[in-house]
Amino acid sequence: MTKKIGKQTVELKSRPAIIGAYASVGKKEGEGPLGKYFDTVYKDEFLHKKTWEEAESELLRQTVFGAAANADVRFADIDYIFAGDLINQCTTSSFAIKDFGIPFFGIFGACSTMAEGLSLASMMIDGGFAKKTVCTTSSHFCGAEKQFRFPLEYGSTRTPTSQWTVTGSGAAVLSENGEGPKITHITTGKIVDLGVSDANNMGAAMAPAAADTVFTHLSDTGREASFYDMIITGDLANTGSTLLCELLKKQNIDISKNHYDCGNMIFDTENQNVKSGGSGCGCCASVFCGYLYKLLLCKKIKNILLIATGALMNPTSSNQGRTIPSIAHAVAIEA
Amino acid sequence: MTKKIGKQTVELKSRPAIIGAYASVGKKEGEGPLGKYFDTVYKDEFLHKKTWEEAESELLRQTVFGAAANADVRFADIDYIFAGDLINQCTTSSFAIKDFGIPFFGIFGACSTMAEGLSLASMMIDGGFAKKTVCTTSSHFCGAEKQFRFPLEYGSTRTPTSQWTVTGSGAAVLSENGEGPKITHITTGKIVDLGVSDANNMGAAMAPAAADTVFTHLSDTGREASFYDMIITGDLANTGSTLLCELLKKQNIDISKNHYDCGNMIFDTENQNVKSGGSGCGCCASVFCGYLYKLLLCKKIKNILLIATGALMNPTSSNQGRTIPSIAHAVAIEA
Repeated sequence: MTKKIGKQTVELKSRPAIIGAYASVGKKEGEGPLGKYFDTVYKDEFLHKKTWEEAESELLRQTVFGAAANADVRFADIDYIFAGDLINQCTTSSFAIKDFGIPFFGIFGACSTMAEGLSLASMMIDGGFAKKTVCTTSSHFCGAEKQFRFPLEYGSTRTPTSQWTVTGSGAAVLSENGEGPKITHITTGKIVDLGVSDANNMGAAMAPAAADTVFTHLSDTGREASFYDMIITGDLANTGSTLLCELLKKQNIDISKNHYDCGNMIFDTENQNVKSGGSGCGCCASVFCGYLYKLLLCKKIKNILLIATGALMNPTSSNQGRTIPSIAHAVAIEA
Repeated sequence: MTKKIGKQTVELKSRPAIIGAYASVGKKEGEGPLGKYFDTVYKDEFLHKKTWEEAESELLRQTVFGAAANADVRFADIDYIFAGDLINQCTTSSFAIKDFGIPFFGIFGACSTMAEGLSLASMMIDGGFAKKTVCTTSSHFCGAEKQFRFPLEYGSTRTPTSQWTVTGSGAAVLSENGEGPKITHITTGKIVDLGVSDANNMGAAMAPAAADTVFTHLSDTGREASFYDMIITGDLANTGSTLLCELLKKQNIDISKNHYDCGNMIFDTENQNVKSGGSGCGCCASVFCGYLYKLLLCKKIKNILLIATGALMNPTSSNQGRTIPSIAHAVAIEA
């Protein structure tokens, strides 16, 4: 029987399997260090649509098709789909999946959405409510810039701590049985807000939330950081990753040897002009579904702790000078 | 053991109890037919804050405090909080609960959010992941008008089919045991989009989704519509309610005698100048937590089917001429 262990963690005794995954990205992501691992690389940022918003929906839609095909699952056999994104009112997801006919739970956790989706989708299976679930999310550089920052045509200067929104999407199919990496533990984050209000430094805002969730996960499970082959945050990028390691060191937790960050991994941060690194719901989603999933599948690594982080602000709150409440959800996955 | 019955419904064998609820509304809602049932009526739409956004967060925050107090529950004993709202990136919820220290799942279902929250919060308990959960949502007329329509100062003319966003919030505390109305069935909606694109006629856009969910719930459970003392949609208002009854009549389902709509109930639609009626996440939330919950608690009614409906568009999608994907989630509750 599944039980809550410690303060914020549940152990999933049924160990739901991720029986299929798919990742789609844009041109720049395809040219990055993980390019060859993504299932589809779109050269055209419009995906043959008229607007960036429609393009992002198409990106997510095709990614879900890909994941279902890889898992060899019919839509009629999927009990629930969990989806969310960065675009206002999560319309990317709604328009993408509106014709799927799958019962839908809309979620929002900013860049933490993939881990939130994996958490809820796996608990639905473990709780006996579903046999198969899907979780998915996406982001699109152009749509995100338009909504959160400045018109692209301005060619605005970016600060060194700013992050580059990934054009990408990931989708995972979970099942009560079948072959694939297993989800074993879920540590659900609480909001942490240490007062950072610079929307161009989301890594600094989110690092304390990530530290809180990693610390809680390890203490809830009684595990050492070295238990995991990889502890992967998404998306603190360079600035936030450094802060995370420092914050955890103060708690006598050393993750310097096995910490990776999706925002650092997806781009060549020195040569691709992305400043601190990647971000966006699609960053963690595409790195997990495209790269990490494959490493687990072929057993190159035996386990990971995936901690997706989200900055829960909007342009209005930033313009009003408010802080950036942040959150991080952790999911432990075994090969 | 909990089981999925039919296509989209789960029966919760553990029957989680709603051990406390609280509803807060604004002045206009307090002057409506249900005024005396709301726990707090705020006369000042700013709630002593500087912005409408901060005011809405304060509204939600105080509502959660009220629900926890009514349920006699400490925050430290709440395993998860589910929250979401209409404001971009769900910042109302994030800012409201950021200091609560409760593991948080952000959800988005537009005006269906309260039913989505009740669904997930009760499944978390039934699945053994939590002993106590909270779900909450809110909306604020001024913040919603500013974001979705026109500056209030314009005093724009409203169309007859338009709906008036409720200033209100509701919060419910669910528990694996304890006294209170029990959640027995969850029917999770799928997106329905029949092509309505008029953002001033959300009732018409959402009615088909509500009809789909009511039809599915009844066929999954094998129940007649007359099984329920009240079948309550939130928030189709006048236009959408008429359409819902017509659509169901075509399926030989007659809900004309026991159908109510939160958007119709919260305002005196003839004398409060709200056109078709109320809407917003806070409409269903405050009517359920303020009024229906009390009817169930004192056993004036024995059961309800609560179907919250959501219009999953945003201003950009409407300006781009796109349709309004809609969804409805149903929750069966017994006294």
